[in-house]
Amino acid sequence: MNLPRHVKIVEVGPRDGLQNEPKSLPAAAKIELINRLSTTGLKVIEAGSFVSPRWVPQMADTQEVLENITVYPNIRYPVLAPNLQGFQAAVAAGAQEVAVFTAASETFTQKNTNCSLAESLLRIDAIIAAAKSQQIPVRAYISCVLGCPYEGAVDVQKVVELATYLFNQGCYEISLGDTIGVGTPHKAQQLITAVIKKIPIEHIAIHFHDTYGQALANIYACLALGISTIDSSIAGLGGCPYAKGAAGNVATEDVIYMLQGLGIETGVDLTKLVAID
Amino acid sequence: MNLPRHVKIVEVGPRDGLQNEPKSLPAAAKIELINRLSTTGLKVIEAGSFVSPRWVPQMADTQEVLENITVYPNIRYPVLAPNLQGFQAAVAAGAQEVAVFTAASETFTQKNTNCSLAESLLRIDAIIAAAKSQQIPVRAYISCVLGCPYEGAVDVQKVVELATYLFNQGCYEISLGDTIGVGTPHKAQQLITAVIKKIPIEHIAIHFHDTYGQALANIYACLALGISTIDSSIAGLGGCPYAKGAAGNVATEDVIYMLQGLGIETGVDLTKLVAID
Repeated sequence: MNLPRHVKIVEVGPRDGLQNEPKSLPAAAKIELINRLSTTGLKVIEAGSFVSPRWVPQMADTQEVLENITVYPNIRYPVLAPNLQGFQAAVAAGAQEVAVFTAASETFTQKNTNCSLAESLLRIDAIIAAAKSQQIPVRAYISCVLGCPYEGAVDVQKVVELATYLFNQGCYEISLGDTIGVGTPHKAQQLITAVIKKIPIEHIAIHFHDTYGQALANIYACLALGISTIDSSIAGLGGCPYAKGAAGNVATEDVIYMLQGLGIETGVDLTKLVAID
Repeated sequence: MNLPRHVKIVEVGPRDGLQNEPKSLPAAAKIELINRLSTTGLKVIEAGSFVSPRWVPQMADTQEVLENITVYPNIRYPVLAPNLQGFQAAVAAGAQEVAVFTAASETFTQKNTNCSLAESLLRIDAIIAAAKSQQIPVRAYISCVLGCPYEGAVDVQKVVELATYLFNQGCYEISLGDTIGVGTPHKAQQLITAVIKKIPIEHIAIHFHDTYGQALANIYACLALGISTIDSSIAGLGGCPYAKGAAGNVATEDVIYMLQGLGIETGVDLTKLVAID
């Protein structure tokens, strides 16, 4: 058992969480949420998304949010950028880090981002090139790493290839997302074991959803392999509007509670976190 | 990693689940629930409780339930008996197996069963003696094995002593209950490791609640030690009326889903199980 001593939590509630809740929160509430999250000890808080408001109206006010949150110097506030235009809007709004996304499934990519998988990589390439010239770090999400709502089982090697491509292109962290929450502990371990043969483990994050209640068990199994970056969402906010049957992200509180019990440091104050709900 | 090939699920929904739901189900609904559970491949279904209806009105009709369910010869339907009187009522109603209960906490025992821990063991002794003479198997629950809502932390050795006592008295299976769901994977493993030094592992069951979402992660950690009997509750029914902050039992569906993913047989048909909800 090779548990890490410290885990970095990437709080995705204000973006991946809220974008998938049926109701939009007003910008002021999002700002307050992010400001309160900033006082808990979290070091990475995903603040929003510059996707088209036609597709994701819940994120239409990310510019307003970014411009009005209290930015702490030791906290990173990445925002999602679907394409070069979104990247430029993010930078214009003051974003100092962006996240890009694709999926290990052709059909999911088509339905989720309205383009082919190959096209999604071209979009990402363009963002990475622009980000490099401005020294902006890029994080990458890969969705459907343990299963696709349209295609079913997903080939581990496809995920490995995508992750390796994105890492080699310059993404500093690859977040492997079990978007529909179908994974179980050993399948998660098989994937991580294959990926970390190609990419140093400290550049891999895990992103589990709780559709069948498996998220924490999967996280525990991945911790045992040495994974030390975990995406989670305050109060388990979220899901996926394009993924049938997807329940919320794993709750940050539950992750922190388990990590504390395992003696793993996160720097996050669970009491403050729980008080936000 | 020493995962068992086969796991026995003890379905506790009709008793531990329903007794802790705020509303009582009519007997006919309980009978239908148990009859449907009987068609899923489950081999043990806890059917009710002969505790005083003054304390647990939700279980007042267990006699009617027991007398009207379809009893399959290969399925066991234990019922809870708090004392000799309850045991006799259970046997009179046709019970072929009973479960007894105590807790690894003096205060919890007093609040939950209105007697001291020592007195609760005397009650159990009386039941075991009567059960032996009628060749009725006795299962034992120990509550609060990883924490007490009143006393906080619980000493592992106290659990080991209680479990050993109950096993030596003749209980064929000891179910270790994290009644308020405070356990995390390594604490669960520490407990199991200590207990199985005294009692063969095949006589130990685990019983987790999902208060902080930890149940499946804990179960996975215990499976890794070879535990092969898991208590769970259809749809996560239940909680504990006397345990402040206790959420439901771990859901049988989530347990079966994880076990299937781990390649562990249960004999339970997940599709049939999910259709019951």
